[in-house]
Amino acid sequence: MTQTSSASAPRSTSRPLLQTLFAQRAQAVIPSPFGAEIPGAVPVVTSFTFGLADPRLFPKADLARATAEVLAEDGDNALNYGGTFAGLIDVVLQLMRDRGVEAQPENLLIGYGSGQILGLLPQVFVEPGDVVIVEGPTFMGAVSRFAAAGARLISIPVDGEGMVVDRLEEVLRDLARQGIRPRFVYTIPTFQNPKGCTLSGPRRQKLVQLAAEYGVVVVEDEAYYDLRFAGDPLPSLAALDREGWVLHVGTFSKIVVPGVRVGWACGHPEIIRRLEMFRSEGSLGPFLGRVVARYCGEGRLQSHIQLLTRRYREKCQVMLEAIAQYFPPEVKVEAPGGGFFVWCELPPSLSASTLLQATRALGVTFLPGTHCFADGQGEHALRLAFSYQPEERIVSGIQIIGEQLHRLIHSCASGAEQQGKELSKSMDP
Amino acid sequence: MTQTSSASAPRSTSRPLLQTLFAQRAQAVIPSPFGAEIPGAVPVVTSFTFGLADPRLFPKADLARATAEVLAEDGDNALNYGGTFAGLIDVVLQLMRDRGVEAQPENLLIGYGSGQILGLLPQVFVEPGDVVIVEGPTFMGAVSRFAAAGARLISIPVDGEGMVVDRLEEVLRDLARQGIRPRFVYTIPTFQNPKGCTLSGPRRQKLVQLAAEYGVVVVEDEAYYDLRFAGDPLPSLAALDREGWVLHVGTFSKIVVPGVRVGWACGHPEIIRRLEMFRSEGSLGPFLGRVVARYCGEGRLQSHIQLLTRRYREKCQVMLEAIAQYFPPEVKVEAPGGGFFVWCELPPSLSASTLLQATRALGVTFLPGTHCFADGQGEHALRLAFSYQPEERIVSGIQIIGEQLHRLIHSCASGAEQQGKELSKSMDP
Repeated sequence: MTQTSSASAPRSTSRPLLQTLFAQRAQAVIPSPFGAEIPGAVPVVTSFTFGLADPRLFPKADLARATAEVLAEDGDNALNYGGTFAGLIDVVLQLMRDRGVEAQPENLLIGYGSGQILGLLPQVFVEPGDVVIVEGPTFMGAVSRFAAAGARLISIPVDGEGMVVDRLEEVLRDLARQGIRPRFVYTIPTFQNPKGCTLSGPRRQKLVQLAAEYGVVVVEDEAYYDLRFAGDPLPSLAALDREGWVLHVGTFSKIVVPGVRVGWACGHPEIIRRLEMFRSEGSLGPFLGRVVARYCGEGRLQSHIQLLTRRYREKCQVMLEAIAQYFPPEVKVEAPGGGFFVWCELPPSLSASTLLQATRALGVTFLPGTHCFADGQGEHALRLAFSYQPEERIVSGIQIIGEQLHRLIHSCASGAEQQGKELSKSMDP
Repeated sequence: MTQTSSASAPRSTSRPLLQTLFAQRAQAVIPSPFGAEIPGAVPVVTSFTFGLADPRLFPKADLARATAEVLAEDGDNALNYGGTFAGLIDVVLQLMRDRGVEAQPENLLIGYGSGQILGLLPQVFVEPGDVVIVEGPTFMGAVSRFAAAGARLISIPVDGEGMVVDRLEEVLRDLARQGIRPRFVYTIPTFQNPKGCTLSGPRRQKLVQLAAEYGVVVVEDEAYYDLRFAGDPLPSLAALDREGWVLHVGTFSKIVVPGVRVGWACGHPEIIRRLEMFRSEGSLGPFLGRVVARYCGEGRLQSHIQLLTRRYREKCQVMLEAIAQYFPPEVKVEAPGGGFFVWCELPPSLSASTLLQATRALGVTFLPGTHCFADGQGEHALRLAFSYQPEERIVSGIQIIGEQLHRLIHSCASGAEQQGKELSKSMDP
């Protein structure tokens, strides 16, 4: 230990010997996408990169009170070994009921964030080379886990009404002709990450129908389901499903706080039991489960969701107004219906990485679109998170990005003009 | 969903179709050993079965205070997304220093209990058929995970000085002759679960030497390391290791409270990075990590360990005295040097399952020895946890077991006597 843990390298003999002990699946180290996505501390620049929650909305006092109550009233169970707290299961069953799904405890797996559950999916479903269908763009924090397990990813485009389900049907038909059955379709139907759009009612119906027809699981990641800025919710895919093909994934990260790390899967018991089997730590911690359940009690969760929805809608509005004021008209932006993000499409002359280089030097960052596609697309797109920054930083940050957009689009245009002139000159005799 | 989640079975078509979607490794469901070991609530009978902690020793007020402080002073980071809290890493590095190991952050993985880390081991090391060496008896909560991954388990006996390392050497030599290299040796060197014995100094030296010689990882599970009833600690295997073959596994479950679910692995960075890769949820929750680190600060952990050691020593003493008073002399018992358990060996005429049947009817349970062996041994042994029950229940429970022991051993003896008489009769002409 002393040697290997110091700056000096371990003895030359031990390293190759150790490497040969690892199982095939553990030969190469694939770094965690979550590690890369999540900063360890509050960023010092105006970052629109990560979907962090707004700390000003954290119910600190209520959580402290919930913890104190749990420890005082149920500390003996909260602090010992034990299974997932039944009261938390009830809270999740109620949330599923609100989403139109009458589930039972055997339909549920509660884990350390939806990230854990999404990370377990390839263990249950994917052998190297198996096809997994994802959206393009999508949440790569999940999708890169599927890729790491050796999945062959096929991306389906997303438009203003969510995943283009007709295109999915073509792909499923083509694959079926080749005798290939995809393992699952990963979709974020509501307030899609990163695009902010929502899968339309007819597409929802068709997607569930295709799942049953082709025998493919649909993993619906509903992280942002409750952060709806206006109107009524559409039925979740799980609510439309009659045969158990939909695995619904939810999280307390967006509706309570991310730092507690509690999420869930709801679906067919055969899937749930297998996800459970690959979750090596047993059940959710008795302490954490009770704190979250206690916090959610007495209507606190619903009123907190109302507060969050109002505030995130306001922040989104501030970002959209700043964009309208500072971005050149060549940048295409659609207002999201909820969630944490605004998706922007740049003119084809400008790449998001060029823009990022310019804005990062001025202390402002965002997520380039290439980080949202499994197939290398997204060069001319970017994701802006309005969730974390306070309003004044949203405005000043958008202004800085806007100034760089004007400069770069202008210089591209004049560069193209210049190039055009040179071209016409060279064509001159 | 509605159909599958209700009492009615899913449509006949969906089930076989779903089954064929699962990866090979997920075809069969293997139930969690932790689920089976851990009751959801406080047992209603006098249970000596599980290694639950004593709730009367839970530092509820200090944990409530630590939580309130974290939320008030560092809530913005505690409740957002983020990596494992650096302050908790410092606490673990100090604990490792106390165990004679100068580790660096890259040597550490902090997870949801040592159970999670032990459950991840086969992902990194085991292909079906690979050999893993364990102790007999051992902690089957961990070992059954290795078996579920397809490991071929070889058990090495444990005597009063811990694992019989000379026997391990023979096994390693025999395997090497067959060209077989075990993936790892799983040992609980200090206050072994279930035997309570401690690996002697010379055996520790030899075990580490064998690991380097044969190129085998030694996983040392030091769950009970700090719960030492008397004397000075022996050096941990990790402290003796010079080449990075020892993976040290520790936990806050026994020295703070189990319910927070925080444990760690400390070892070669190449192993740590791979364990991390298979832990699907990313890092330890920012909230939990800060609460545990805050609790451990200002010398609170060390004084709490002193309290725990004193109280568990007293409870152990109460159990040993009750055993001396109520158990027949045919039952062999050795006083443990620390930890949670007393191991008892019954005369060969009496099986622990027969005894359990009798005591369970009177409301008293324990862990039969067969639950502590990977190879079916242990029929005439049992594990008694003194950790959970209050003193008066320890005494009354041991009295009940003792009465049944007297009755069963007496009836066995008279049965054998009877049998002997009949035998001699039948030999008479």
